[in-house]
Amino acid sequence: MGQINKSLISEKVRDMSVRDMELLSYEIRDFLLDNVSKTGGHLASNLGAVELTIALHHVFDFPKDKLVWDVGHQAYVHKILTGRAEEFTSLRQTNGLSGFPKRCESEYDVFDSGHSSTSISAAFGMAVARDYKGDNYDVIAVIGDGALTGGTAFEALNNAGAAKNTKSIVVLNDNGMSISPATGSLTKHLSTLRTSSGYLKFKKGLKEHLDSKGSLYKYLENFRDSLKYAIVDGGAIFEELGFTYLGPIDGHNITECIDTLKLAKRTEGPVIVHVITKKGKGYKNAENEPNKFHGVSPFDKETGKPLSKSSSPSYSKVFGDKLASLADVDNRIVAVSAAMIDGTGLDSFVKKYPDRLHDVGIAEGHAVSFAAGLALSGLKPVVAIYSTFLQRAYDQILIDVCMQKLPVVFALDRAGNVGNDGETHHGVFDLSYLSSMPNMTVLAPADGKELEDMLEYALNLDGPCAIRYPRGSADAYNPSPEFDGGSVRLIDGSDCEIWAVGKMLDVALKASEILKNNGINAGVVNVRSVKPLDVNTLSESCSIVKNIITIEDNTVIGGFGSLLNGFIIRNYPDIATDNIGWPDKFIEQGNTEDLFEKYGLTAESVAERISEFIERKN
Amino acid sequence: MGQINKSLISEKVRDMSVRDMELLSYEIRDFLLDNVSKTGGHLASNLGAVELTIALHHVFDFPKDKLVWDVGHQAYVHKILTGRAEEFTSLRQTNGLSGFPKRCESEYDVFDSGHSSTSISAAFGMAVARDYKGDNYDVIAVIGDGALTGGTAFEALNNAGAAKNTKSIVVLNDNGMSISPATGSLTKHLSTLRTSSGYLKFKKGLKEHLDSKGSLYKYLENFRDSLKYAIVDGGAIFEELGFTYLGPIDGHNITECIDTLKLAKRTEGPVIVHVITKKGKGYKNAENEPNKFHGVSPFDKETGKPLSKSSSPSYSKVFGDKLASLADVDNRIVAVSAAMIDGTGLDSFVKKYPDRLHDVGIAEGHAVSFAAGLALSGLKPVVAIYSTFLQRAYDQILIDVCMQKLPVVFALDRAGNVGNDGETHHGVFDLSYLSSMPNMTVLAPADGKELEDMLEYALNLDGPCAIRYPRGSADAYNPSPEFDGGSVRLIDGSDCEIWAVGKMLDVALKASEILKNNGINAGVVNVRSVKPLDVNTLSESCSIVKNIITIEDNTVIGGFGSLLNGFIIRNYPDIATDNIGWPDKFIEQGNTEDLFEKYGLTAESVAERISEFIERKN
Repeated sequence: MGQINKSLISEKVRDMSVRDMELLSYEIRDFLLDNVSKTGGHLASNLGAVELTIALHHVFDFPKDKLVWDVGHQAYVHKILTGRAEEFTSLRQTNGLSGFPKRCESEYDVFDSGHSSTSISAAFGMAVARDYKGDNYDVIAVIGDGALTGGTAFEALNNAGAAKNTKSIVVLNDNGMSISPATGSLTKHLSTLRTSSGYLKFKKGLKEHLDSKGSLYKYLENFRDSLKYAIVDGGAIFEELGFTYLGPIDGHNITECIDTLKLAKRTEGPVIVHVITKKGKGYKNAENEPNKFHGVSPFDKETGKPLSKSSSPSYSKVFGDKLASLADVDNRIVAVSAAMIDGTGLDSFVKKYPDRLHDVGIAEGHAVSFAAGLALSGLKPVVAIYSTFLQRAYDQILIDVCMQKLPVVFALDRAGNVGNDGETHHGVFDLSYLSSMPNMTVLAPADGKELEDMLEYALNLDGPCAIRYPRGSADAYNPSPEFDGGSVRLIDGSDCEIWAVGKMLDVALKASEILKNNGINAGVVNVRSVKPLDVNTLSESCSIVKNIITIEDNTVIGGFGSLLNGFIIRNYPDIATDNIGWPDKFIEQGNTEDLFEKYGLTAESVAERISEFIERKN
Repeated sequence: MGQINKSLISEKVRDMSVRDMELLSYEIRDFLLDNVSKTGGHLASNLGAVELTIALHHVFDFPKDKLVWDVGHQAYVHKILTGRAEEFTSLRQTNGLSGFPKRCESEYDVFDSGHSSTSISAAFGMAVARDYKGDNYDVIAVIGDGALTGGTAFEALNNAGAAKNTKSIVVLNDNGMSISPATGSLTKHLSTLRTSSGYLKFKKGLKEHLDSKGSLYKYLENFRDSLKYAIVDGGAIFEELGFTYLGPIDGHNITECIDTLKLAKRTEGPVIVHVITKKGKGYKNAENEPNKFHGVSPFDKETGKPLSKSSSPSYSKVFGDKLASLADVDNRIVAVSAAMIDGTGLDSFVKKYPDRLHDVGIAEGHAVSFAAGLALSGLKPVVAIYSTFLQRAYDQILIDVCMQKLPVVFALDRAGNVGNDGETHHGVFDLSYLSSMPNMTVLAPADGKELEDMLEYALNLDGPCAIRYPRGSADAYNPSPEFDGGSVRLIDGSDCEIWAVGKMLDVALKASEILKNNGINAGVVNVRSVKPLDVNTLSESCSIVKNIITIEDNTVIGGFGSLLNGFIIRNYPDIATDNIGWPDKFIEQGNTEDLFEKYGLTAESVAERISEFIERKN
């Protein structure tokens, strides 16, 4: 690890020889494997971007030039090359190095990403601002082929490609995958480019140029024309969208990357560099199963096996298995995924019913409107998307599904605080944005069995239904009877009641125990149905206790608590309420336990807050 | 108007001769002009789609075949051809004919649209469902070239184009415009196609075929090959995306439309028909100024002038003029529009500063991330988009702007109930979805002067700020002093206070008058800052009165009322509140006055509700 330390910064890479950079790439792969196998994190995508990242830092003048990483989980090498290598022991941990670009970490990070397909937009904004201010530097967006299928990326290509006088560089890091293998006709187009004779001719042309030691500028002059001949239909989409298309090139050949990036640097107007990489490159386990090594927990480097294996099934697996078994008896059930088959637990479903799962790529908006079309034709679509990514489809859920009251089931995985992925990935807004949509039913299970029941219930509703459940194990203790559409009182209390949503039921039950020991008799209700609010059970509660406390794994603003407040304050103005949830800020990364502790969401903190609340009332 | 009545339905058009259809097209144009000049509505786009719509009904077997209109405001002719001609006198009025497709109106309407760029998704969903169920009919999406720049449309093309075995038909109604002239490289690409020799050759080929009376099937067999030769780079983007590209054809030539649609009907797999139309076709005033005749109020057919001209400026105009004058003294100010320059009042700005306005096309998500890039580079972007359309950018606002706490100003025009456009266009969700976003400031002016002040205030904030204001005149009576960031008490009351948001201030002031006459002393506060909540002024209120009523032109769920409740219920549990706003349902179309009346949002209704509320408390 001779070269990898905190003094390894971009400027040094600019002066390196190709041999040194090649050596560095080996060291970086070892470093990544050593560290990520211990901390967990995104591995395969970073292993695939080693040479490309080195070449970017060699060719460009960062931080004067600006580098925007799409999604951002592939920016580890960039972090290593910008003085942050020694912080990798704390990667994604509480108070540790972020797994995504963060402006607060380094001046080399210029855009805090996390969600897909926005890098070209942001970079084009920077390029327009640069020209407007008369500054002179390059702006580069690095985007994967998976992210390129997201509509925002296309909107940006359409806009940036038409701005002939605005220099912007898009580097397409094409590994044929997003998290699952990429889908769609764009993917096929890229795949054709990859295997076309043009690839070889382009390389040959580049080599001849380099051998002849002729002027790069002259080569450039002929470049577009030669490309037109060299590549049959080469990059047609990008050329039609106004971009000069360079490539495809071998993203693991540093010389080729450097030469092409230099060409891009000198090309006028919008330019796209098509770089072919291999996800997981250099680590056989990851090369063989890149989707398994996309985001990993700590694992054994030799075998690739996780160090600790959870014995209980995750919510994702419970969901996927139940959906498959419901599909056995109802052939109207179909599943829709946005490039997240494994992550959402649909791997078992797709094995059983490959023709009944539609993976539309990273395209959440389309996924939802597509599902609306399926529902209008009598099918029962289940759209399984992480809570945070479904945000991209807010309008389509509201207008195309809720307004038409279509029976589309939304399975929101990774709802609530997700821990290590941090600010961009916490699913703590869904209860707020879904609750204000008319016709929408919003459910939250407190364990795996309840998720199964709710899925069955949702598939029999005559309108849209969202079920939101957290990351992780689905075996929480939950004494609730079978789900019947409403809330259920599990513990009778005389001093107060805790209305707990989803996984917070576990916290509420424990808090009730603690309070009991302190002489406070706290009832507990498992909310289950966030919307519609179970006003019968709630009215009962208002006749039993004078204090109701809500607790949810969601921002307090607009969440379940505010729905409950609205009913109470109008109908039972003598009842006091308190709402516990995430505060009105972006919650940082960290181990979930640390974050729950810090923000007062453990059983102990909740019990303490309730004690104080009741004392204050007396 | 011989043919136009309620018995004119699709089946009849199928049997018509070309001559009869041509005659019909003239009658329909007269009919449209007669009716829309009286009722107001969308005119230019419908005039442009007359022959195309007739041809669609001639060739396809509706309602067995399914026709999905993107956006939907161009479906008037379709309504005329499906038995709804006689309802046009009530177009867009209370209880009248909708200006958009509505399944509840007719079995010929299969998808309730209103927002852009989702038709291909929905239609593809229907096509997939059809094949899955083994049914046999055609599904056709009709989409404009403007809507095609929306990311969801691209996501759908990418998905549908790869499904080689799923027959789906996309009709691209290309008039070179959305509402403003279309922008971006796709537009240039389409324009090239339009003027290419391929156009003529295609027409010639079609004509030769028809002259020879040979088999259509045989012609079809050679079709793709001949196309490849006929059109240089013709439809390259669509072909690369997996679609068979047919066209471009003259959308005002019924024969050409019919022949090509028949070809499309017989083509296997995904097919796109590129139809060139003229927005406003046949009505000179609209042809000359298609954007002025996009959506119109009642007007004089001869002159094209509006029948009643509002003497007071609209919020849109106040906004645009003020932004231009602020831009005079701060060259960091730039504007971003999503194909809505005129509608959002930016016409004066763009005249003055053409280089400082970026119209990105119908691409709200990109608009927001692009603005993030501008802001990160030291500029002060103002993103002006209708409230309802900004919903498309929910995730980008949250993650790209709010999370990075970037100084982007969002100008949300047409916030609140918009009246005649109905369900899909009311901007009654913005207070809910924006308030739950951390770091976001949300302001609502009660008159034009306050909008000006707020715009200046917002541009000096160190973070994101949304200003939401209604459609229409900006000259409401508002006695508030200059905006200072907080709420302001305008009338002192002893029985209750009405906290009124934006245009509802006017209602609150009048309700207070009525209440006074009934012996109830109701104070009035102009909220101005929805978020952050002005807790100082609110705490004062809690020491003055025991009852606080909120009133807002937003859904009650998650709106300003719920923010206020949250503070009250925690800090002043002895204060009772009531929240007035739109109920948890999609509000139908209608004249604004009728809707405010129906839903209890007039001064009289509000006064009555407050009386009852206070009585109930005593």
